[in-house]
Amino acid sequence: MTDPSRLPSWRRGGARTAILDFVARVTAPDTPDFVPAADRVAVFDNDGTLWCERPTYPQALFLLEGLAAAAAADRDLAERPVVRALLAGDLDAARGAGLSPMLDVLLGIHAGLTAEEFTASARQWFERARHPRFGGPFGGMGYRPMGELLDLLRASDFRVFVVTGGGVEFVRAVSDDLYGVPPDDVVGSAVELELERRDGRVVLVRRATLLGNANEGPPKPLAIQAHIGVRPILGAGNSAGDREMLEYVSSGPLPSLALVVEHDDQVREYAYAGSSFTDPDAEPIRETADRLGWTIVSMRDDWGRVFGPGIP
Amino acid sequence: MTDPSRLPSWRRGGARTAILDFVARVTAPDTPDFVPAADRVAVFDNDGTLWCERPTYPQALFLLEGLAAAAAADRDLAERPVVRALLAGDLDAARGAGLSPMLDVLLGIHAGLTAEEFTASARQWFERARHPRFGGPFGGMGYRPMGELLDLLRASDFRVFVVTGGGVEFVRAVSDDLYGVPPDDVVGSAVELELERRDGRVVLVRRATLLGNANEGPPKPLAIQAHIGVRPILGAGNSAGDREMLEYVSSGPLPSLALVVEHDDQVREYAYAGSSFTDPDAEPIRETADRLGWTIVSMRDDWGRVFGPGIP
Repeated sequence: MTDPSRLPSWRRGGARTAILDFVARVTAPDTPDFVPAADRVAVFDNDGTLWCERPTYPQALFLLEGLAAAAAADRDLAERPVVRALLAGDLDAARGAGLSPMLDVLLGIHAGLTAEEFTASARQWFERARHPRFGGPFGGMGYRPMGELLDLLRASDFRVFVVTGGGVEFVRAVSDDLYGVPPDDVVGSAVELELERRDGRVVLVRRATLLGNANEGPPKPLAIQAHIGVRPILGAGNSAGDREMLEYVSSGPLPSLALVVEHDDQVREYAYAGSSFTDPDAEPIRETADRLGWTIVSMRDDWGRVFGPGIP
Repeated sequence: MTDPSRLPSWRRGGARTAILDFVARVTAPDTPDFVPAADRVAVFDNDGTLWCERPTYPQALFLLEGLAAAAAADRDLAERPVVRALLAGDLDAARGAGLSPMLDVLLGIHAGLTAEEFTASARQWFERARHPRFGGPFGGMGYRPMGELLDLLRASDFRVFVVTGGGVEFVRAVSDDLYGVPPDDVVGSAVELELERRDGRVVLVRRATLLGNANEGPPKPLAIQAHIGVRPILGAGNSAGDREMLEYVSSGPLPSLALVVEHDDQVREYAYAGSSFTDPDAEPIRETADRLGWTIVSMRDDWGRVFGPGIP
């Protein structure tokens, strides 16, 4: 598993060495750090860890496009202050009244759609939309080095999960194409669904209400246990919203590796400190990582390439 | 996939033919009924479908053993009417005051344990406990023909999930050993967990509260969507609590197969109509199955053997 031809988009040394050493250690039979395949579980945050989240979350662009269409057809909706702020791109103003009114509006856009209709709508958007700076389709905005890491882990008998603060059905719509992760291995924020019978068919209809908590911060390890049922031994994140997940990963009884992607590459991507969507005042993840000895993945220094073909 | 050496514990004809025909149809490329591997999802109820649920649910035996130990150490607990009824085996009396007081007591037994401690406790019970009639360990109380069906489906590129009304962490403790189903492919009823830091370690601690609804009836398809995100094309159940799941499976746009295990073998197992745990008055599943054209699996007629080695 330490074949140096692996992880070709990673520069030698640094994070790449830490990853290859870890994988070699936990897969070497009859050594103290060997981890049976059943416990080889890896979890990856999505926004800013597996794909580009700037200038804003892809899902926000998807929702704003839907909101603009809805507002064009509904004057009352268009005149609500939170809608005006959202459509003007003023996220701070939109959040001014708290997260709930904003979420109500955003979740309302697809309320009434069946789960299958929503998936089709998200897939159409992914085919159509282009990144405002890089010009490529969002299907190409996944980080190539992270895709290679997922492949390496699967080849080493890891089960790989995406654990996103984003909407689970949005990410599932493309997770297999983008990451080779089937929908059932995506954990995320979810809306309530309602079972209806339409013409004798059972359909599941979206409601405008979040199911439980948004999957950021402390909810992440809880969602991991609810969905996976095994404490992961490898985790990767990029923001304060991933702190508890990485603490959970790195405080178990088995060897573990916690990775923090640092956005320090203004030229090829963006330079910013990843903050938590639900708790903007949380400690920067870089400080937590330094204190707890997690492995920093510098986009600038550790990655030879950032994106896939077609994007520099 | 129609190799007749498959499903050796199934008698020829009947349900076996329906299963082999279905698998052959959906896996034959370039035919109208071909289903891509991404959509080959199969869901199985557990109690009474994959393992024996009589004279009572294995989990009930596990909980009652724990309750007896707790009651021996706590006189106040022992004297509560619901506890006395439970320990006397009088389920009707225990449910007399509704499901909630009974669940509070049963969920209270393991409250305060970490997820990992609970799993260890369940595994120890599975090693120790013996079925009251058959005398074998519960690890041998899985239905051999269903195990063969799971294998056939996996060999045909199906992803196989257990969707149980039972406690998800209880079933996960043995799902891999019993069924070859890893913990992350088990969906079930769950308790709330709380994130705690103990000596710098993050642990997830069980609370005595059900998280959401028990996974029976209409919640089953909702849980399937929440966890899997794909409408299954094959489902198996045995009780009225599986009705909505099987309706969901059988009312999608793709070819589908809904199986209902009928307990009609008093000699080798039990003869009873599977009822819903949460709605005892629901229509018997056999009537629903006949009306909707689902496939009945008769234990007496369709299965050459019922259990694995060591049990007749």
